[in-house]
Amino acid sequence: MTVPAPARPGDPIDAVDTPALLLDLDAFERNLGGVHAYARAHGVAVRSHGKAHKCSEIARRQVAAGAVGVCCQKVGEAEVFVEGGVRDVLVSNVVVGASKARRLAALAARARVAVCVDSAIQVEQLAAAARAAGARLDVLIEVDVGARRCGVTSPDEALALAARVAAEAPWLSLRGLQAYHGGAQHKRTPEERAHAIARAASLASQVRTALVAAGHPCAVVTGAGTGSYRHEIASGVWNELQPGSYVLMDADYALNTPDPDVPALAHALTVLCTVITVRPDHAVLDGGLKTFAVDSGKPRMLLSGWRTGSISDEHTVIEPDEGAAALAPGNKVALVPGHCDPTVNLHDWIVATRAGRVEAVWAVDARGALF
Amino acid sequence: MTVPAPARPGDPIDAVDTPALLLDLDAFERNLGGVHAYARAHGVAVRSHGKAHKCSEIARRQVAAGAVGVCCQKVGEAEVFVEGGVRDVLVSNVVVGASKARRLAALAARARVAVCVDSAIQVEQLAAAARAAGARLDVLIEVDVGARRCGVTSPDEALALAARVAAEAPWLSLRGLQAYHGGAQHKRTPEERAHAIARAASLASQVRTALVAAGHPCAVVTGAGTGSYRHEIASGVWNELQPGSYVLMDADYALNTPDPDVPALAHALTVLCTVITVRPDHAVLDGGLKTFAVDSGKPRMLLSGWRTGSISDEHTVIEPDEGAAALAPGNKVALVPGHCDPTVNLHDWIVATRAGRVEAVWAVDARGALF
Repeated sequence: MTVPAPARPGDPIDAVDTPALLLDLDAFERNLGGVHAYARAHGVAVRSHGKAHKCSEIARRQVAAGAVGVCCQKVGEAEVFVEGGVRDVLVSNVVVGASKARRLAALAARARVAVCVDSAIQVEQLAAAARAAGARLDVLIEVDVGARRCGVTSPDEALALAARVAAEAPWLSLRGLQAYHGGAQHKRTPEERAHAIARAASLASQVRTALVAAGHPCAVVTGAGTGSYRHEIASGVWNELQPGSYVLMDADYALNTPDPDVPALAHALTVLCTVITVRPDHAVLDGGLKTFAVDSGKPRMLLSGWRTGSISDEHTVIEPDEGAAALAPGNKVALVPGHCDPTVNLHDWIVATRAGRVEAVWAVDARGALF
Repeated sequence: MTVPAPARPGDPIDAVDTPALLLDLDAFERNLGGVHAYARAHGVAVRSHGKAHKCSEIARRQVAAGAVGVCCQKVGEAEVFVEGGVRDVLVSNVVVGASKARRLAALAARARVAVCVDSAIQVEQLAAAARAAGARLDVLIEVDVGARRCGVTSPDEALALAARVAAEAPWLSLRGLQAYHGGAQHKRTPEERAHAIARAASLASQVRTALVAAGHPCAVVTGAGTGSYRHEIASGVWNELQPGSYVLMDADYALNTPDPDVPALAHALTVLCTVITVRPDHAVLDGGLKTFAVDSGKPRMLLSGWRTGSISDEHTVIEPDEGAAALAPGNKVALVPGHCDPTVNLHDWIVATRAGRVEAVWAVDARGALF
């Protein structure tokens, strides 16, 4: 099934059918240019994270704005981005399974492809697939620098894995380390983020030193996100950043006190909804849990005087403060989602707008690429 | 983009690529047959709710098992179900907007179509669209029987709306009342659910009596869900039930103490994930917030001895209790989602299984039908 687009280029925003994802292109371009300029000024590369937007049009714009490529979390996302013209893709996640390894090896015939590992079976499966396809895959050892999720936890573990990768030359080639501290992104103060990334940097640096001392290559240490990238840069350990939300921004990131010297980020992504019911003490919008992800809090109303109340599958109740503007059924209102990544993943289209009109409608073409 | 299917008919379950939605056909058929038989024995119709599964193959099976049709929440879902062969569809939600009204009127040329209203503008828009298309739409007045969301709240409001609908004959025709108490579904004890539905029944009955006394038709009072339907039947007010989750079941519904005389429901829907990382104190699965909705709690591991820990966009950490079975990367495990409706909405395919093998792969063809 192809879900129809909610708007056409040239439409005024008020004609967009709802619920729909809107992207303010002016804000998007400022966010994009600001972060890329900051990274360039500090001599580090940007590899934009495609898991945030799942949209190859945005990925192409990130590469055009200087990104060395994109990263993503799923083999299926990598396939969509390569199909969409991106020539350098990193799956910034460990991947297990012979069929996924075969798909990565097939993709390596069309683009520069890298993937993470944290255990021997992944190395075996990737090597077998690359050998069978006559392809070469780059590999990064994932280091658990604070997420307490995937990744090796010591230099010794990394050395053992690096030896296994080296034994699979030329099919596998060690590019370096994946070192991402997800939890640090949402710590609210610059001091908390600095502290978290200092600990991450210490382990990443130890692992890199151990690899290099043992004669292994470690050209790239990649990681960092929209909330913390200033601290990864300052550590001197990372030479590649993986911000994703920076081009979109969401309500959760807006709760961070920003670092004083990084470019300010504006909410470029909103969700447009229609008021369907108005009652004395509340109104109801036509989007709910299938329109907004709520794992990091409810969406925030942009219309002053109205708060988000209860949210169910297809409805969001909004409640007025004193003096709130009157609403009527048919009015359209915009909300900032709590968490942009899983919210975008609910939509098939991004309606790109400028100065009150629809400029383009982009497919969220990697939406649903779960495996 | 078409997301590829994670399995083929005939595959063993262990060959399904992950993450993937699995449907146990034996459990699905028992759930389906049990609830339909109970409703039939009590003389009420079943109009299965398609918002739970968004899959026209399941909708067709529900009609084949005796449902009078399906209901859904979105015009786009109604279009998919009619395209899929369902001949009687109710949008059990109020709809605002001229373009949505036009689409409903167009659909009425191909199927019996009904929609809810709770304000005058909806009646105007539906009537204008039906008149322009030369179509007839059935209308139900939504009554707020406890959700505190959409719907009229008094017999007088309903009478005023019914008069507006009557004035739009023959383009609009009043079928009756939509009276659904969502909050009652998840009250944990039969007594709490009985109390909530008794209050709902009182208002629905008053509204119906007022309409009939004023000479308006009110052939159908429709509503009820998987958690409460026994109480709507017992009230004698409803003559049509709208259960959705009954065929799938989720972890949240399983926390209800069931009513003693209704058929037991089994978990037919699970999500299959692969273990990608194993550490001494945890393991990590390849599905997260884009695989499971977490609005009603985290997914529950079926493998004994393992608990669901933190969940992020593409990872779920699971933690062992003492004596838990050992896991290795590549092992596949099944989880019951917290809330089935928004979880299904994250997937493009339902892998229907029986006796350990894939019997069919069904498209979630109304997924993403947001408007």
